[in-house]
Amino acid sequence: MPALEKEQCEACRADAPTVTPEEQDTLMQELPDWEVIKVDGVNQLRREFRFRNFVQAQAFTNRVADLAEEEGHHPAILLEFGKATVRWWTHKIHGLHRNDFIMAARTDRLFEE
Amino acid sequence: MPALEKEQCEACRADAPTVTPEEQDTLMQELPDWEVIKVDGVNQLRREFRFRNFVQAQAFTNRVADLAEEEGHHPAILLEFGKATVRWWTHKIHGLHRNDFIMAARTDRLFEE
Repeated sequence: MPALEKEQCEACRADAPTVTPEEQDTLMQELPDWEVIKVDGVNQLRREFRFRNFVQAQAFTNRVADLAEEEGHHPAILLEFGKATVRWWTHKIHGLHRNDFIMAARTDRLFEE
Repeated sequence: MPALEKEQCEACRADAPTVTPEEQDTLMQELPDWEVIKVDGVNQLRREFRFRNFVQAQAFTNRVADLAEEEGHHPAILLEFGKATVRWWTHKIHGLHRNDFIMAARTDRLFEE
């Protein structure tokens, strides 16, 4: 398993730098199921998780939401029948911080559990 | 309170009709906070619900999800910090059935509780 998921999020200031393209490329190697998308000009990490039904998708949504609340770093989660789509980004810096990649790796781990 | 929220959803067949524009206008009078949007050519009912934080938005997401599972009719719910956006439509008929308006009215009631 990649070490990324073991890292803790650090407090993120509004003037913290977004990841560089080189950092992003390196981090994405540990997140093969995620893609970087642009939403309203803001880079975000996105992955769709598939489930057999609504209840399972809801349970996963709650596991991700509980993790988010623990870390004080909150994603957008789209809950649908058999599907939960998670997007991570850092509101304060309007882009991707290392924290987002850590949270994506931890989301993968929750899915594997 | 409108009577709409008291109605039960009926089982929906793939050949059930979508609401007519006239029916839609009448039903929307009972749902002043909802709008009809088109997503990939499919009419959907949409409302954004605001909360003070993530935990409250998550709790509401679960109340709506539990109601959906009870009725066997499932929306898309976008959970974000301080916000839950709910969309109702009927997959089988690629549009809006009376059931969707009933579920929207019941979602309003959950929010008021």
